Amino acid sequence: MCYFTNGFDQTTVAEIAARAGLTERTYFRHFADKREVLFGGAVEFQEHITRAVASAPSGMGPLDAALEGLAAAGALLQPWRSRAVQRNAVVTANVELQERELVKLAGLALAIGGVLRDRGTPDAVARLTGEVAVAAFRTAFDRWVHADADTDLATLVRASRDELEVVTQR
Amino acid sequence: MCYFTNGFDQTTVAEIAARAGLTERTYFRHFADKREVLFGGAVEFQEHITRAVASAPSGMGPLDAALEGLAAAGALLQPWRSRAVQRNAVVTANVELQERELVKLAGLALAIGGVLRDRGTPDAVARLTGEVAVAAFRTAFDRWVHADADTDLATLVRASRDELEVVTQR
Repeated sequence: MCYFTNGFDQTTVAEIAARAGLTERTYFRHFADKREVLFGGAVEFQEHITRAVASAPSGMGPLDAALEGLAAAGALLQPWRSRAVQRNAVVTANVELQERELVKLAGLALAIGGVLRDRGTPDAVARLTGEVAVAAFRTAFDRWVHADADTDLATLVRASRDELEVVTQR
Repeated sequence: MCYFTNGFDQTTVAEIAARAGLTERTYFRHFADKREVLFGGAVEFQEHITRAVASAPSGMGPLDAALEGLAAAGALLQPWRSRAVQRNAVVTANVELQERELVKLAGLALAIGGVLRDRGTPDAVARLTGEVAVAAFRTAFDRWVHADADTDLATLVRASRDELEVVTQR
């Protein structure tokens, strides 16, 4: 599949809908606006992650649990790498898509923080851990889309654990 | 000053411009769109931070230097707390303003990462440190706008240093 041959801005919702075999009206039953077509799996993606965080071993610390959840997301994305690379190029080229992406990631950080709180982490630490883990995921993801095709996203996410320790070392 | 008595969505650019003593045309010479009026000082804000990061003592580690820069931003915002609280309420109530805010903060994280790289921090660590420091600033800022009027933002930003160490502890 080729993403927006004429660019996202130049493509109408009618064209996007037609390619998906939908009418424009049906499109808007599924997606709130034009941008949402690029975030179709965002709810399931977030649920997959929060479930993985929630089911991390109870002895596991909050950051490790959060990164395990995000590594699970990495395993989910791995078979779709070439799609993810294409999609990333579309999002990177359009500031409104970047904005939407950042909102989704901010929501993901909040959701992870919520699960950590449910696991017994104090509120302030839980929130900050959610933010830090998603920041680590973003940098891992960015490396992944620019690396060789056989680079493993889950491995990059787990490797950020050591980097975070380096970052906070005094 | 009272922010958008009728809500941001219900206020036109003509009204915003009029209140600032500008024509709509002059408004658009200063701001790219309606949302930008709430991000008027963003460039100076970012420059203030990156300058402070750049001038942190050379022996200071990257995260401490980044947080010093953000604490300097805290000192800049402190006298404007009630304005910041009002502005935060406007941004929080509007998803498009949240999006714009997240883009500015993502740009700030990148800029801090760039300064850290210039200070000799390896690229990967520099980028992640920028992201982590801005995540810490966001949580500190959020506490600040919800705390007593005499709570000091710079102190909250510096206090996040210890929290980040707790977060990454094994």
